[in-house]
Amino acid sequence: MSTEKDSPGDEDQLQAQRERELTDRVLASWAGTSDERLAQILNSLTEHLHAFVREVRLTEVEWTRGIEFLRAVGDVTDDKRQEFILLSDVFGVSMQTVTVANLAVGDATEATVFGPFFVDDSPRIEHGGDLSAGASGQPCWIEGTVTDTVGAPVPGARIEVWEADDDGFYDVQYDDGRLAARGHLFADEDGRYRLWGLTPTPYPIPHDGPVGALLEASGRSPMRPAHLHFMVTAAGKRSLITHIFVRGGEFTDSDAVFGVKDSLITDFVEQTHQLPTPDGRDLAGRSWSRVRFDIVLADDAP
Amino acid sequence: MSTEKDSPGDEDQLQAQRERELTDRVLASWAGTSDERLAQILNSLTEHLHAFVREVRLTEVEWTRGIEFLRAVGDVTDDKRQEFILLSDVFGVSMQTVTVANLAVGDATEATVFGPFFVDDSPRIEHGGDLSAGASGQPCWIEGTVTDTVGAPVPGARIEVWEADDDGFYDVQYDDGRLAARGHLFADEDGRYRLWGLTPTPYPIPHDGPVGALLEASGRSPMRPAHLHFMVTAAGKRSLITHIFVRGGEFTDSDAVFGVKDSLITDFVEQTHQLPTPDGRDLAGRSWSRVRFDIVLADDAP
Repeated sequence: MSTEKDSPGDEDQLQAQRERELTDRVLASWAGTSDERLAQILNSLTEHLHAFVREVRLTEVEWTRGIEFLRAVGDVTDDKRQEFILLSDVFGVSMQTVTVANLAVGDATEATVFGPFFVDDSPRIEHGGDLSAGASGQPCWIEGTVTDTVGAPVPGARIEVWEADDDGFYDVQYDDGRLAARGHLFADEDGRYRLWGLTPTPYPIPHDGPVGALLEASGRSPMRPAHLHFMVTAAGKRSLITHIFVRGGEFTDSDAVFGVKDSLITDFVEQTHQLPTPDGRDLAGRSWSRVRFDIVLADDAP
Repeated sequence: MSTEKDSPGDEDQLQAQRERELTDRVLASWAGTSDERLAQILNSLTEHLHAFVREVRLTEVEWTRGIEFLRAVGDVTDDKRQEFILLSDVFGVSMQTVTVANLAVGDATEATVFGPFFVDDSPRIEHGGDLSAGASGQPCWIEGTVTDTVGAPVPGARIEVWEADDDGFYDVQYDDGRLAARGHLFADEDGRYRLWGLTPTPYPIPHDGPVGALLEASGRSPMRPAHLHFMVTAAGKRSLITHIFVRGGEFTDSDAVFGVKDSLITDFVEQTHQLPTPDGRDLAGRSWSRVRFDIVLADDAP
């Protein structure tokens, strides 16, 4: 029985051939996909999923655990909790999608993850207005400019800002339905903006589900570093969705969702209660902070 | 503003660097995983998921549709319907796992997908017995041998056989809870086995959910070709889970779950009602078929 086929080298070759042929068969099965873009996506996903299985020599027990994990992710997902987004987030897949979608253009401000806490109908505030609307936290003076990549101001750019309170909760997580710690304003004729917000604070992503268990098994923290969300839009410009992070703040090196970019870490400068506020606002003896964030918008893709 | 950084080539390089750095950051985040095997799996999965996003330049709209698709898969999954398994099946991921787990060894019979219809407590049948137990379909005489890779018989090997009736339903899909079209027997002292089953028939995988919609968008059929399931176990031998398929049958080139291997396509030979049955059984004037399936078991991995 010691035919050539029985030698280990040939068996390895036969095995590799079986694995490759299977992948090729699956790739061929997508040939009838009428949407060319969908076909491209299905082909690439097939190639990479199969390469993963082959590379790690996935066992059937591990495959079963993977299926059970996905089922558990589905089981905790509902209209209020989207565990599949969390799963994408902690694998950096969300952030990689953001990175791919926002090509480097000159010194255009880098984008980061959108997050689940944006709402469409934030209140409009005036320059120097306060977005906190009663949300708890240290007052923070936020100012900066919106320019294009050649340094020209972008007057009228719409700037949305939203953030968590100092307990780490967004208004949409409150029970009473009120809007707080969010607002929008428009850059002035020189492209400038200024408003009062709150010094941001770190908070965890929901971690009582299967994604939290995965983080735990990997010794990873569910915390996000303190950040302020921005969405900036203007005619003819690429929309920018980003955060600013607190330089020296906790968790900037271990953001659970990989949203931190070095260029987005900014100085939130602590101010004692004795220092006068930029607009003369009376903070009743409280300390405050200030931050400058100059935003550079890329042109819209042609 | 025309610094070197603004030249398109440098922007491409910067973009590639941002994408790579993000992947590296995610890979580094798994470093604290205490289970080394889990760490290996997470690293490989991260590398391939990120490569997929980069390769197809996944848009944020497409990412959102992907998340919604996964949620829909979760929504139809319950104790009776496991859409994540179907999803794995139609991407050939289940079959690739089976292929990886059953390394080519000499001329050992190839494995294929287990499927969801096995049950533990099938009835024992005698040699020449009938597993149909009232399930509808054409009688099929099934016989063969169980040997090892050097051709020695494996007496006492346990052979489980299960199949759908000629409407394409397994007993577990019946309403009345009875067992039918499944059974087990043991190879005789010469490694031989023989029994009556049913000529198998094609049937679709469940296709009224999101996986069915994916197949439809890809012009793929949800059908599986006609097959008989086998599970063969013996002391010191690698367990074999496989099917045999009907040569010349419909859908052998387009199995929705990629279970077909050329080596598993067998001749189901049609027999007129005039031909005497191998064991003299009286089929009351019905036609029948016969198939021979010689099973070769690899040794258990050392």
